[in-house]
Amino acid sequence: MNQYPEKVYLNGEIIDAQSAKISVFDRGFLFGDGIYEVMVQINGRFFYGDAHLKRLKFCLDKINIDFNVETLSSEIETLLIASDLVTQDCLLYIQITRGTAPRTHSYPKNVSPTVMMYAVPKKLPGINLINASVVTTNDYRWEKCDIKMTSLLGNVMANELAMNQNCFETLFVRDGIITEASHCNVFFIKDNTVFTYPANEYILNGITRQIVIDLCNTLNLKVIEEGVKFSDLENYDEAFLTGTSTQIASIKQINNHFFNKNDEIGTITKLLQQAYLELK
Amino acid sequence: MNQYPEKVYLNGEIIDAQSAKISVFDRGFLFGDGIYEVMVQINGRFFYGDAHLKRLKFCLDKINIDFNVETLSSEIETLLIASDLVTQDCLLYIQITRGTAPRTHSYPKNVSPTVMMYAVPKKLPGINLINASVVTTNDYRWEKCDIKMTSLLGNVMANELAMNQNCFETLFVRDGIITEASHCNVFFIKDNTVFTYPANEYILNGITRQIVIDLCNTLNLKVIEEGVKFSDLENYDEAFLTGTSTQIASIKQINNHFFNKNDEIGTITKLLQQAYLELK
Repeated sequence: MNQYPEKVYLNGEIIDAQSAKISVFDRGFLFGDGIYEVMVQINGRFFYGDAHLKRLKFCLDKINIDFNVETLSSEIETLLIASDLVTQDCLLYIQITRGTAPRTHSYPKNVSPTVMMYAVPKKLPGINLINASVVTTNDYRWEKCDIKMTSLLGNVMANELAMNQNCFETLFVRDGIITEASHCNVFFIKDNTVFTYPANEYILNGITRQIVIDLCNTLNLKVIEEGVKFSDLENYDEAFLTGTSTQIASIKQINNHFFNKNDEIGTITKLLQQAYLELK
Repeated sequence: MNQYPEKVYLNGEIIDAQSAKISVFDRGFLFGDGIYEVMVQINGRFFYGDAHLKRLKFCLDKINIDFNVETLSSEIETLLIASDLVTQDCLLYIQITRGTAPRTHSYPKNVSPTVMMYAVPKKLPGINLINASVVTTNDYRWEKCDIKMTSLLGNVMANELAMNQNCFETLFVRDGIITEASHCNVFFIKDNTVFTYPANEYILNGITRQIVIDLCNTLNLKVIEEGVKFSDLENYDEAFLTGTSTQIASIKQINNHFFNKNDEIGTITKLLQQAYLELK
């Protein structure tokens, strides 16, 4: 994701990325008062695009931003045409903030949301072959993590922690239980049973998380939506991360604990990666 | 605060407010990755201006934004001249974000922070005569509330809760203990002893909070930095809020609990308000 796009969609207009600017009074800038969504186009269609737009709507409703998500489809098309990415594999970023108003905490009346989108070329591997090392931190974030908001400093700080240690991700641990990672969900496997934290207010219910649970059901793998204790890690056989760009990424190591000493990706993780590939 | 300023300081330039724009790739917009500060000019000088700048530095350091706060004084002067507010009572808003970079969670290298400031006329009353009604909510915010960050959605939502009920503020209650309000600190008084939540990671250590504690010491009022139990409210005689714009504001009512049935401001609150006035 580490590149600027060529074009940006901003409130109905297509603008060169370097000229795409918003007011310093946009509540996205002053308060992190916005919702975002990331999806990928694969083989000419947005992978679970409807699910992403549905979640966008869910989150906007949660913070009372009144915006009709259904208007986005044609705008996305316009953006893709302008970006020369109509049929290309690409990543689409959507951010909707409450709009621009003089600074005061409470929601301003009669303002229009700011809608910003861009697409960048992104060719995801068929299967993510990474076998990731991850670190952990106390889950100091707020208790409404089910809202995909742009007030992301907590996640940013956790991600930086991983980067500083040349690791792929940081897992959050709340009251001894592993919840999720800075921008991924996390799964664990024990005796062919798959464990992941329940979709409550302590995690973002990732679209890929939901797909993986469905795949487990299809594959007759038992899924238990229950958090895994950090102190219990040694009892699990495999672990993996999920996310829109990450897809399904095996975890080799959490802090000093190793899952797969021979650098091999676990059997169930491989099975799910293959099943995920076949959805594309 | 509910008005646009005439001028905005943005990265060394003075710009008409309606033209003051930042890139949509500013991390303040994408991630709420910034720190802010608010101070007031009273009688021709910034009230505890040095303390505000020191806190700004403390918070920037906390999230590793490398910016020399000492350069701000002359820039603030430039802004005040352009805003025609050199000697006027006014409110100064300062926001510093990590800067502009392609979107990826971790901190980008070699970017310059974005510095945005504006001043608006603001004449605070000598003594804040409000006797506020406030409501409460579960303190669902993160556990680094000592950082004055722009990822403020949690505070924004809590403030909106108060506004929706025609109340002045919303108090946060964490594990049964009242921590602070959406943009104020809170104090309680029992038998001439003053209680306020300790300055740890669960509250923003307000400059006015610190001033009030100093005033209590001067006035030989015992201060206990200890949170007050929500279930214990009936045992307290008075309560008040503190903040840069709020100064010291008496609390009449928390939810259905009344402190001063006759709408009078409590004795100790009055005493502190008078002492605060004399600092100006």
